[in-house]
Amino acid sequence: MQEKEISQAVIRRMPRYYRYLGELLEDGVERISSNDLSRRMNVTASQIRQDLNNFGGFGQQGYGYNVKYLYEEIGKILGLNQQHNIIVIGVGNLGQALANYVKFEKLGFVIIGLFDVNPALEGMSVRGIKVRMLDELETFCAEHRVDIATLTMPKEKADAIANQLVDLGIHAIWNFAHVDLKLIDRDVVVENVHLSDSLMQLSYNIVKNRSARENDN
Amino acid sequence: MQEKEISQAVIRRMPRYYRYLGELLEDGVERISSNDLSRRMNVTASQIRQDLNNFGGFGQQGYGYNVKYLYEEIGKILGLNQQHNIIVIGVGNLGQALANYVKFEKLGFVIIGLFDVNPALEGMSVRGIKVRMLDELETFCAEHRVDIATLTMPKEKADAIANQLVDLGIHAIWNFAHVDLKLIDRDVVVENVHLSDSLMQLSYNIVKNRSARENDN
Repeated sequence: MQEKEISQAVIRRMPRYYRYLGELLEDGVERISSNDLSRRMNVTASQIRQDLNNFGGFGQQGYGYNVKYLYEEIGKILGLNQQHNIIVIGVGNLGQALANYVKFEKLGFVIIGLFDVNPALEGMSVRGIKVRMLDELETFCAEHRVDIATLTMPKEKADAIANQLVDLGIHAIWNFAHVDLKLIDRDVVVENVHLSDSLMQLSYNIVKNRSARENDN
Repeated sequence: MQEKEISQAVIRRMPRYYRYLGELLEDGVERISSNDLSRRMNVTASQIRQDLNNFGGFGQQGYGYNVKYLYEEIGKILGLNQQHNIIVIGVGNLGQALANYVKFEKLGFVIIGLFDVNPALEGMSVRGIKVRMLDELETFCAEHRVDIATLTMPKEKADAIANQLVDLGIHAIWNFAHVDLKLIDRDVVVENVHLSDSLMQLSYNIVKNRSARENDN
């Protein structure tokens, strides 16, 4: 509790450090200066130092960073030194795609349950994970530790299910439903992935660049 | 070219305005004050006014915003008043999930082609869209207007394909490959969706909240 609050903007940059350090490690690089890292990542060295100083530094003046140590420390900061059990609510195309992603498991994110309301999916399995009907959710949560619930169902049902999940003791939601969840004063962290928002951001930049190109000609 | 540069942070908030205004429109609301909109969206009224002033305002002091007009204007700003043709490179689980999303089409994002290197997928269709082999890409791009290429293939091949796509005249990439594309000095806009980064951000917050809960007890 003595820890100072670190801004989400800093946290949002940490997975990228983790990724680059992992690649350096694979390439057998043992030490890297903040200047070298800065060139590779295309951010300023001062940004890197500032970001990492939030967690106490890790570098020694003139020696640069120990890649393996820094990789592992950032992994710990990001909570990757422990397993996170995930359930997915909504086994449509996206839910199945996420269930089939083996890469998440290497990072400690393990999908342990899939839920849907469509009886046609009952008994089906995705990558060995059984699809259960939503009315089994309560029993399942009583019998398993669930750390993260992924919402890939229609937005109309997202609020009700999100609140039910929090009632069942789940404190984290990975939300793909295209809606801001109403979880007023509830003890839960939500991370949104709004794919159409991302497409709209892209189309804004397409139009902007296209008109710049036309004006250049 | 006389337009001032609008920050990507502002642009990143616009799809959310668009979404809320669309919901208001569906509910039959014709006018809304920035205060009312602010309460619904859980941002300050001054933030709303500042954001919209980047595009010249749209509100009349004391009258609030005309919902339909603002919705349509933001749609135009975001380039949603025109069709964007999309191809998807990599027809694995995620590529298929994206191809099956009908919602994108309603926003003007139309998937017109699917490409893979796996001969087992040749001749297959997803929602009526034929899967083509990657060696047909050049011919396809010569015969169709492609506005956005979506990369859902392994990260190892992403750079080479991204550069090929730019060579073929595609100026926008929606990148799901877990890598920062190297497109040095090329005229292309990239929007990344890094799902594992999003999970890591979530797990950081899980660990932080868990330790706060434990300290409270």
